[in-house]
Amino acid sequence: MTVNVFQDGDHGTHTVCVSCHAIKPGMLNVHLVPHTHDDVGWLKTVDQYFYGARNDIQHAGVQYILDSVVDQLLKNPDRRFIYVETAFFYRWWKRQSGDMQDTVKQLVDEGRLEFVNGGWCMSDEATTHYSAVVDQMTIGLRFLNDTFGPCGRPRVAWHIDPFGHAREHASVFAQMGYDGFFFGRLDYQDRSRRKASREQEMVWRASESLVPPVADLFTGILPNGYNPPEGFCWDQLCDDPPIRDDPDLEDYNVEDVVSKFLTVAQEQVGVYKTNHIIMTMGSDFQYENANLWYKNLDKLIRYVNQKQVNGSNIHVLYSTPSCYLQELHRANLSCPYFPMRIDDFFPYADAAHDFWTGYFTSRPALKRYERISNSYLQVICNQMEVLGGPTSRNGSFGVGNSDTMKKAMAVAQHHDAVSGTEKQHVADDYARRLANGWTQCQVLVSNTLAALSGSSAPRVYCEHLNISVCPLTESSSKFSVNVYNPLARPVGWSVRLPVNGTAYAVTDSSGNAVDCQVRDCVLCTFLKVTFDPETGLLSSLSNLETQQTVRLSQNFYWYNASDGNNKDSKQMSGAYIFRPNSSTTFIISKTAKIETVQNSVVQEVRQWFSPWVSQVVRLYADSRVLELEWTVGPVPIGDNMGKEVITRFDTSINSSGIFYTDSNGREVLQRRKDYRPTWTLTQTEPVAGNYYPINSRAYIKDEKDQLTVVTDRSQGGGSIQDGSLEIMLHRRLLHDDVRGVGEPLNEASDLYPEGLVVRGRLLLSLNPPAVAANTHRPLAQEVVLQPLITFTEGLLPPNTRPEFSGLQTALPPAVHLLTVSQWDPDLVLLRLEHQYEARDSKEHSQPVTVNLQVSPLPSTFILLTGADPSYRCAVCLSGEKPLPKTKGDPSVWEVTLKPMEIRTFLLRVRLR
Amino acid sequence: MTVNVFQDGDHGTHTVCVSCHAIKPGMLNVHLVPHTHDDVGWLKTVDQYFYGARNDIQHAGVQYILDSVVDQLLKNPDRRFIYVETAFFYRWWKRQSGDMQDTVKQLVDEGRLEFVNGGWCMSDEATTHYSAVVDQMTIGLRFLNDTFGPCGRPRVAWHIDPFGHAREHASVFAQMGYDGFFFGRLDYQDRSRRKASREQEMVWRASESLVPPVADLFTGILPNGYNPPEGFCWDQLCDDPPIRDDPDLEDYNVEDVVSKFLTVAQEQVGVYKTNHIIMTMGSDFQYENANLWYKNLDKLIRYVNQKQVNGSNIHVLYSTPSCYLQELHRANLSCPYFPMRIDDFFPYADAAHDFWTGYFTSRPALKRYERISNSYLQVICNQMEVLGGPTSRNGSFGVGNSDTMKKAMAVAQHHDAVSGTEKQHVADDYARRLANGWTQCQVLVSNTLAALSGSSAPRVYCEHLNISVCPLTESSSKFSVNVYNPLARPVGWSVRLPVNGTAYAVTDSSGNAVDCQVRDCVLCTFLKVTFDPETGLLSSLSNLETQQTVRLSQNFYWYNASDGNNKDSKQMSGAYIFRPNSSTTFIISKTAKIETVQNSVVQEVRQWFSPWVSQVVRLYADSRVLELEWTVGPVPIGDNMGKEVITRFDTSINSSGIFYTDSNGREVLQRRKDYRPTWTLTQTEPVAGNYYPINSRAYIKDEKDQLTVVTDRSQGGGSIQDGSLEIMLHRRLLHDDVRGVGEPLNEASDLYPEGLVVRGRLLLSLNPPAVAANTHRPLAQEVVLQPLITFTEGLLPPNTRPEFSGLQTALPPAVHLLTVSQWDPDLVLLRLEHQYEARDSKEHSQPVTVNLQVSPLPSTFILLTGADPSYRCAVCLSGEKPLPKTKGDPSVWEVTLKPMEIRTFLLRVRLR
Repeated sequence: MTVNVFQDGDHGTHTVCVSCHAIKPGMLNVHLVPHTHDDVGWLKTVDQYFYGARNDIQHAGVQYILDSVVDQLLKNPDRRFIYVETAFFYRWWKRQSGDMQDTVKQLVDEGRLEFVNGGWCMSDEATTHYSAVVDQMTIGLRFLNDTFGPCGRPRVAWHIDPFGHAREHASVFAQMGYDGFFFGRLDYQDRSRRKASREQEMVWRASESLVPPVADLFTGILPNGYNPPEGFCWDQLCDDPPIRDDPDLEDYNVEDVVSKFLTVAQEQVGVYKTNHIIMTMGSDFQYENANLWYKNLDKLIRYVNQKQVNGSNIHVLYSTPSCYLQELHRANLSCPYFPMRIDDFFPYADAAHDFWTGYFTSRPALKRYERISNSYLQVICNQMEVLGGPTSRNGSFGVGNSDTMKKAMAVAQHHDAVSGTEKQHVADDYARRLANGWTQCQVLVSNTLAALSGSSAPRVYCEHLNISVCPLTESSSKFSVNVYNPLARPVGWSVRLPVNGTAYAVTDSSGNAVDCQVRDCVLCTFLKVTFDPETGLLSSLSNLETQQTVRLSQNFYWYNASDGNNKDSKQMSGAYIFRPNSSTTFIISKTAKIETVQNSVVQEVRQWFSPWVSQVVRLYADSRVLELEWTVGPVPIGDNMGKEVITRFDTSINSSGIFYTDSNGREVLQRRKDYRPTWTLTQTEPVAGNYYPINSRAYIKDEKDQLTVVTDRSQGGGSIQDGSLEIMLHRRLLHDDVRGVGEPLNEASDLYPEGLVVRGRLLLSLNPPAVAANTHRPLAQEVVLQPLITFTEGLLPPNTRPEFSGLQTALPPAVHLLTVSQWDPDLVLLRLEHQYEARDSKEHSQPVTVNLQVSPLPSTFILLTGADPSYRCAVCLSGEKPLPKTKGDPSVWEVTLKPMEIRTFLLRVRLR
Repeated sequence: MTVNVFQDGDHGTHTVCVSCHAIKPGMLNVHLVPHTHDDVGWLKTVDQYFYGARNDIQHAGVQYILDSVVDQLLKNPDRRFIYVETAFFYRWWKRQSGDMQDTVKQLVDEGRLEFVNGGWCMSDEATTHYSAVVDQMTIGLRFLNDTFGPCGRPRVAWHIDPFGHAREHASVFAQMGYDGFFFGRLDYQDRSRRKASREQEMVWRASESLVPPVADLFTGILPNGYNPPEGFCWDQLCDDPPIRDDPDLEDYNVEDVVSKFLTVAQEQVGVYKTNHIIMTMGSDFQYENANLWYKNLDKLIRYVNQKQVNGSNIHVLYSTPSCYLQELHRANLSCPYFPMRIDDFFPYADAAHDFWTGYFTSRPALKRYERISNSYLQVICNQMEVLGGPTSRNGSFGVGNSDTMKKAMAVAQHHDAVSGTEKQHVADDYARRLANGWTQCQVLVSNTLAALSGSSAPRVYCEHLNISVCPLTESSSKFSVNVYNPLARPVGWSVRLPVNGTAYAVTDSSGNAVDCQVRDCVLCTFLKVTFDPETGLLSSLSNLETQQTVRLSQNFYWYNASDGNNKDSKQMSGAYIFRPNSSTTFIISKTAKIETVQNSVVQEVRQWFSPWVSQVVRLYADSRVLELEWTVGPVPIGDNMGKEVITRFDTSINSSGIFYTDSNGREVLQRRKDYRPTWTLTQTEPVAGNYYPINSRAYIKDEKDQLTVVTDRSQGGGSIQDGSLEIMLHRRLLHDDVRGVGEPLNEASDLYPEGLVVRGRLLLSLNPPAVAANTHRPLAQEVVLQPLITFTEGLLPPNTRPEFSGLQTALPPAVHLLTVSQWDPDLVLLRLEHQYEARDSKEHSQPVTVNLQVSPLPSTFILLTGADPSYRCAVCLSGEKPLPKTKGDPSVWEVTLKPMEIRTFLLRVRLR
């Protein structure tokens, strides 16, 4: 056994405690990695999984897994285990005795229990926004750091289950200081080619903006997804034969097992490059009775290694991904092996007709609720908590907190949460958790606003403005509206409220009249749209500033979801998989009934396509964006046909089979029809195989025109025809797609027995490509971080402070205030981000310098410049290089951001 | 906690280590008994169960259960566990390290791990012979005693799963010194009545011959079979909600669980008599991950007892059956509560049409193989090993042993083994184990016979004489036959051999001619039978000595097995359950083709009823018994009807609805049609509800005539009409009976794809009732312990010792030599038995005295009279009262046996 202290030169100095067993250099070394994969909700809720409740649905109890693994690790110091999901570990840890906690600390210190990944959950990669991913990693890693110190720090990212892999995730992981990244799922054609060429391990260059090797990350594809080799699963959930080594009993099988294992190892090394291979000995919710696994693994190691005296060249050892990676690193140093990858791993198909592109859209209402909750968390919980100080958590409106929302958002990032691939009752649980988070946050906001405004008038939160419901504004003759802008620069934002009166006087905080209309008046300023008078459909879009116009028609369609009755394959469309029965789209209506409403603020065209599809096309007077507010549902299924509803834009743009989608709301990747950048695709699904996740935006362009669509949630989409861009809005399916969830994605419940109605917005902008990012970058941030709107009954009391700015000055246009959050009583977590890619914009894709003492600091705080702000990468919480300390030297507080860089600070501050 | 040392005045002085938690006298005390029920074969073989192989059939791995339970007991000294099946414990124990063995010893010494029952298996009660039951208990209890000493001694018998309960089992348990007996299954009507009258706990007076309280045994019926109360099963195999006591997580349920538990406890105490109740917290193969159970039980105890501060009157504690029994004993001392039971618990029905009377006959070939293997074990392995001394185990024919057969027979006693209720592949495994035992025994016999005879000529064993196959006798012109009589008195026995010649000279060991015939000659001496010339069926039977004659016809029939398509119930006939579709029997043929063969030794009438049913009726010249050798099969199922084949005797005996069956081959119980002795029966199945196990014999009688049928294996039967007696011979069924085995009892395999042919013998005697036992008692022993027949090619070499007697003198007629077996190098286990019931016979039902120094001792040994033969009860292995030691006083060696008494001795001997 060797104990290694890692020195990580790139990201600073840190100590990590890894205890790796000795390998045998001349042999094939087989690294057995005992592990469990514990979904933070899927068929059961996260708490049901923790306790092992509802085992009638699925046998799984994480509390017992951790109990059992710790017991078994103690029985044999050779044994190793890795644990991944901090949401579960945290739940377990806080129920343990001090003695048990000490025992576990020792196991961690000795490298026998190793944390990998370490986020609160293992996030989905297609449908998550990077800001929420960074947050969920933060709370997981912080817990590990606070609890275990440097020895608790995960060395590798471990995304063994997500259904395709986003480049932005890899980029964030690289910046967080992980040494490597392992996953299990990739396109079956890609896998096949990589096996043949032994390219299953590689270096992923995960950013086109960040200077290498900042976003370079070793990436390994695991040999069996995340399962053990066939025949070697010894969990209680498996049926493989145990090792029967008592010659007095029937069916002694040691020779059989050893011989089979040697064959498996030889086959595996044939598709990898070094003389080290890894085997993942575990799977979903395994190790609840770890004895079964370890007892048989102990025997396997003993009997396989015994063969060495007879000339066997195979050495088996307990290992961890860190230990395996260390050996790969050594092998690569002596003889560089690994190829480079620059694209991503979307879409994921596990067979010719089985593209996992449905979940990009599945559960669109949950996806929106998650996204708006992220806004609520960032804006309301985090910023308001910092601005209000301790009063926010315990003030005139009672006790509130941001933790509930942080944890609710963190579990919602799980790859069966916002992805929409969980059972209905579990989706309901995620939503309920978020709603609890909102409730806690609202107390906190009320406390802060009371403190800041000097008025303790009750604050009212209208959460149903999206369906024009707000009892206060609908019933009150006088009310006040407070709008809080979470972005670090001024924005325009139109507020639409449901009222019952016919005439209102609207004034600002100084009592001056505000331009406001109750359904009456004028038109657009920056854009122009035309409608075909015969069909009622959009016919063109013009940017009046740039004098460019494109033909643009838009309509709504559905694909008939496959019911499996198909000659090519029995695969059905379901929560994961999008499989239209054919590439034919069914039009909902060739024409729309329309109605036009105009006033000085907004011009609206309302379109009715059918009883279950309608849209409002809006142009705000001061906006450069066309808003399409769509409403879809309940999707009818009386014809026994599952429906995948899309909207499609058909334009005159000459897009040449290419379109673009963002990765987790950040960098944009080029997509080309029926094509993958690094391997030769045999396209077997002309629609589903050309779908990609649209996290925040997609665009098509030619030399002159770029049409960008910014979405208000994650959706799937593609460009199946040149000049065309389609976005899937809603899915209602009649069959399960046989990937485990065991339910059709029907989304009908007691609350909405007819099926779910979903409403959302698409924001269109038309620009010359060279400057398009100047619009869509800030626009997308505005959609992600929306203003907080609160109401009070009647007029504000006298002496109320009507306005307040949390910032000392606005940030430069390229700099995004990613996070401001209370870390502990005297530390504030600050994340600044350069929000442009290197290629985005001549104007904005430049280095920009911010002085922390001035610019982003909340105006309520005094920065304690004598203190030591640790200068960090995106999120990592230990061992980063601190800024040079020079007391009183203001230059210490200046930070320069280059395109796509994120910098994280813990600022020691005092309430002003 | 109280630690108790038991003083057992009745059976001698012994120390048992039981550590019972304190109860609360004024409260309802709930004894939680964590336990597992580990079938020694059922859906999987015993070794598959041990290792956890074939978990695709059933998830069960006993090695892990014991690993896990020991681990969990160590975590909290309050916890308790009971373990039952020594066959499994032994397999586990011998794989443990010395440290682990010491740890387990400590747990046993401290009463935290307690053995109950303790036999090698939990025997079936309907189809097992008492001699094999005593043997299997012996090897289990001996292992526990040798390993753990007095603290390993089980205090209670624990037959929670067998399907009905035999009085002879209770009698044997009482004589073995158990303090009590618990079981789970009894007739649903009986249970219902007992609950209403709170008679679920009782004293069972289990013998009509033994002087009370020798065979009196406290007997308790468990409240939920052997399962936990509904909703409180926390094993990994269960789905009940765990206790969720973290208020920060969803679904906190402590109040719910406690309140539900209090209700259950209150309901349960309403159907028992004392303020103590027992709950069996476990079930089949549970506790593989004991943490799940104990973690929740710890919480249950904590939270339920916490309610006492709010006035709750319920106290929960970890307990064991011994501790529970101790409290019942105290309660009964102060206020005698428990009623008396004298009949047995057959047949068992769990619903109106669900009588578990099919397994009395299921797998008749396996039942016969088990019975003949018992004979082989007693005769060949045990007696030959003692007679041959060390040479028997390692002699001129190599290394042999009796252990293989002892253990094979011990597992075959399991309630899913000889019962016939296991899956086909498991039945095959039991048979294979027995066959392995035979092979080992044959080496041992060859060694002994070589030593005793002085000839090392190879011994040939013809195991297929039942189908007239013996290659040696069929091909050899000269061969020698050696016949060994295992009974302790002379018997007549006809030997029938397959030969191909037409004339043979047969001589005895002195060279004198033996009366022998090759299919030719004369007729009967003691009995006379007549056949109806028109039908070819039996028409009368006469005893020529007693001048009595009865009308007796016999034929073969089948019941149509229910396929569940029935208005009353969907219950189908299966391995467990006998359910004819109606009470109508289908006759196989009204007439039989017959052929008669006679010689000086035997007279045979051969009857053919159909291609699949035939019979040979035999009268041997020197026998008082009519032999019916039946052959049934393959049972045709081309008509899609399952068939339950019976033979029925219809006689002129005026039996008045009464017939008699033995219990485990020993005492006989009276059975009355549509009647149970201690409760009012509502009869719902006129045939199946009147079936009883016939272990070795059944009879009908009136004042003058008793017709006794001795069987060669366990079978089911009944007397549905007066004067009639039917015996089920074979069953071939098309459906599973939904009691878990999951297979129809079809018994077709690769070896016999057409279905199984079964052959057997029924031995009929006709006597005046008062003297009938004088015939059937020795007859039944002769059927159980058959002679060993071996062959040698050619004439025996000169100087061969042709004859040998293992006994110094014959035993008196009433005394049966139950066991002679090598215990260790210088101890021989001897069991003597009075084989008559008190009411059996004026002549034989008398006390009889045997001198151990003379009568039963093998003639090869010298009894070391200075040694200390421990005088024991039936089987118990520790703590019995020794005989008074008076060196040289011959009276010490005299033992007097009263009817049905068994006495066990360990005799210190030296080879002569």
